[in-house]
Amino acid sequence: MAKGPGIPKGTRDFGPSEMVRRNYIFNTIRSVFRLYGYSPLETPAMENLSTLTGKYGEEGDRLLFKILNSGDFRSGLENEDLLSKSPAELASGICEKGLRYDLTVPFARYVVQHRNEISFPFKRYQVQPVWRADKPQKGRYREFYQCDVDVVGDNSLFNEYELIKIIDEVFSGLSIRTKILLNNRKILTGIAEKIGEKDKITDITIAIDKLEKIGIDKVRSELYEKGLSEQSVNDLQPILFLRGNPAEKLDELEKILSGTKTGPAGIREIRSIFEYLENDNCGSEIDFDITLARGLDYYTGAIIEVKALDTEIGSICGGGRYDDLTGIFGMPGVSGVGVSFGADRIYDVMNKLDLFPDYAEYGTKVLFINFGKEEEEYCIPVLNKLRSEGISSELFPSAVKIKKQMSYANSRNIPWVIMAGENEIKEDKLTVKNMDTGKQDLIGRDKLAGFISENTGI
Amino acid sequence: MAKGPGIPKGTRDFGPSEMVRRNYIFNTIRSVFRLYGYSPLETPAMENLSTLTGKYGEEGDRLLFKILNSGDFRSGLENEDLLSKSPAELASGICEKGLRYDLTVPFARYVVQHRNEISFPFKRYQVQPVWRADKPQKGRYREFYQCDVDVVGDNSLFNEYELIKIIDEVFSGLSIRTKILLNNRKILTGIAEKIGEKDKITDITIAIDKLEKIGIDKVRSELYEKGLSEQSVNDLQPILFLRGNPAEKLDELEKILSGTKTGPAGIREIRSIFEYLENDNCGSEIDFDITLARGLDYYTGAIIEVKALDTEIGSICGGGRYDDLTGIFGMPGVSGVGVSFGADRIYDVMNKLDLFPDYAEYGTKVLFINFGKEEEEYCIPVLNKLRSEGISSELFPSAVKIKKQMSYANSRNIPWVIMAGENEIKEDKLTVKNMDTGKQDLIGRDKLAGFISENTGI
Repeated sequence: MAKGPGIPKGTRDFGPSEMVRRNYIFNTIRSVFRLYGYSPLETPAMENLSTLTGKYGEEGDRLLFKILNSGDFRSGLENEDLLSKSPAELASGICEKGLRYDLTVPFARYVVQHRNEISFPFKRYQVQPVWRADKPQKGRYREFYQCDVDVVGDNSLFNEYELIKIIDEVFSGLSIRTKILLNNRKILTGIAEKIGEKDKITDITIAIDKLEKIGIDKVRSELYEKGLSEQSVNDLQPILFLRGNPAEKLDELEKILSGTKTGPAGIREIRSIFEYLENDNCGSEIDFDITLARGLDYYTGAIIEVKALDTEIGSICGGGRYDDLTGIFGMPGVSGVGVSFGADRIYDVMNKLDLFPDYAEYGTKVLFINFGKEEEEYCIPVLNKLRSEGISSELFPSAVKIKKQMSYANSRNIPWVIMAGENEIKEDKLTVKNMDTGKQDLIGRDKLAGFISENTGI
Repeated sequence: MAKGPGIPKGTRDFGPSEMVRRNYIFNTIRSVFRLYGYSPLETPAMENLSTLTGKYGEEGDRLLFKILNSGDFRSGLENEDLLSKSPAELASGICEKGLRYDLTVPFARYVVQHRNEISFPFKRYQVQPVWRADKPQKGRYREFYQCDVDVVGDNSLFNEYELIKIIDEVFSGLSIRTKILLNNRKILTGIAEKIGEKDKITDITIAIDKLEKIGIDKVRSELYEKGLSEQSVNDLQPILFLRGNPAEKLDELEKILSGTKTGPAGIREIRSIFEYLENDNCGSEIDFDITLARGLDYYTGAIIEVKALDTEIGSICGGGRYDDLTGIFGMPGVSGVGVSFGADRIYDVMNKLDLFPDYAEYGTKVLFINFGKEEEEYCIPVLNKLRSEGISSELFPSAVKIKKQMSYANSRNIPWVIMAGENEIKEDKLTVKNMDTGKQDLIGRDKLAGFISENTGI
């Protein structure tokens, strides 16, 4: 037999039962975003490569999916170009567009392009797929959704506080217990100043970021490799192992960083956020984590990361403040802060912890068995009535064997099955079968909508 | 000044106010699909080119967006290939994947791939963007959404009837008055048989499809060009100008097609659908239109098209029955029927006829003016209370000039603005300003949520 059709590796189909679960996540997230006054935005899947290239580092450029120009894509190129240019150079000669790699760069592009129509602060959310030509592996896909929420054009730490509230509300809505970790890039910069390795801030934060994964010994080796002296690494180590509650750690750190240029501002900022949170009833555990860096160069202030408490799955949400995202498109001085929810990991956590509500809640509630033309006619007005009351209902479209129709009801988890044959029609009644218990009731045609509503709480 | 960033031609950003309107359309459509027992499906944006190529005709193949292979896309190709192959041939050497062109082919691919997990009839809906490298022009985009609803694996005309009900319910939900046109491919085939031009069925239907647009004279010329005799064209003409209600036209046509092999079955089928509809309370006008062909080769039975009555904008929804869609992927004999809603055209109709509900219903309801740290602290508990009641609310994040904050409220159509300065705090009250009327009320902090609910009907 010939091999059947498939899909590109690293991509997925989402069938009905997965869609219902994914929509449950997306709808929960979106409704919280809206409650906090964030507005929806969607940008095209394709962006000009000039918008995308150079924004994600060399590795990111390599992972961009590029779209071949339409028509004669070779026109304008010399034979020499076609044969001898590097793949990357040739690609940029035959491709003008690429698929978006994240939602942040398209957002920055949108803000700059529409700066004159936007009234700042601009609070937007965006829930769309992104594409990366990454090596596919368990839990890593080439097409996946990001759920981003950002506010640009305002410096107040009230924004950071609200994002933490949004995180708390989303995960309590999804019944996921979480720990929210906070840090501040200015604190990391202060530390680099303190140990006299100001130029190595990127190397230090990347190494720090790995502390939990690879342990202190390997972090030390990595720092030596990057050219830090033993003295610097020794100075760094106690800072990484501060203990106590956030206030205690901040007090301790304040002393250590007091002489630095940047550190004290970071401490002030993170303290402000904790002050906002003090008077609040956040359900999530919130901690100050000095090892948190998220490896991302563009954060300039707050750094935020969220971990699920009841399973080891890494970060399920993260973000921070960036002071000059729109600068890359010629609009400097606009500060923003935002976080991104990882829908796939959230899905995995919820599956693992069995947190999804009952599927049956979302699908068809009632299936009418089809016994033939006459019975069909008898059932259609009742079917219409159910739908007019908002109850998702179906009539099996053909009068095939009852067994097939019942197995359809079973496979789709339909909780109620209606049978109306000769006897029922004579009495103007319907037989209602509860598919969970197997119990059958004989009720009047005009009573069905009420019966279903009562028994399913619709 | 350097040119600012842009997006590829034929693509669009959807800002907050467009998103709210688009979501209103999508949500209405989706909720009707669900009510009728259809389940959601999503497929990847990228499909293997082997899945897409050859399914949309030569022109369609040309309009596929192709994705350049990652890494060294030239490997395996000879210099000769790079320089001398046609663009299409070379493209298939350096591209394995493409963006989906519609939702129908990916759906067929999904059904074949998952045939063993699916319980038939499979009723699915799919709302996702598609991409076509078409010449961009007014109303035609390179990225646009399709909203498809299909059922496969069942031959009953009950499915056609239900799709018409879905169409009726969607457009009545959107307040768009429509006319639904029905035809049947078997009738068109019967006509081709009748006039003795059985082999020219495609040419005839394509020409018929243009009748309304280009008029009978040009249709005649086109048919001559395709090789029809004057006799055949004369035989055809009266059939195209049948008059009367659907029953009258069908009676007349039945006589004309009585001797043909295929025609009578088409008439029987379309009559069955009208019988279902007779006992129904469809709000839409429904007509039998023998000129309806939709130019699509793969329809084998019912053909459906929807036009908005109060504006000239062409078809806003259409579809039909196809008897062998999955055959292209090696699974023959599966019949399906479905329709596709054109979100962009529906959007244009609703905009033109001013049918969208008030934007304010969907955005932020309440903005707290920020007068400074102390006032912020005074307002935050009230803000939290509003949100806990499901009222979308914001506190302006910084204590900037009042004028700027008020103009933010105006530009975002926020209906209520709350002010709490020294005086209000002293009295434990808030000043509530109705932004429509300008009226201000002084009310207790604990009374705000109730006041807003009462006055906005949330």
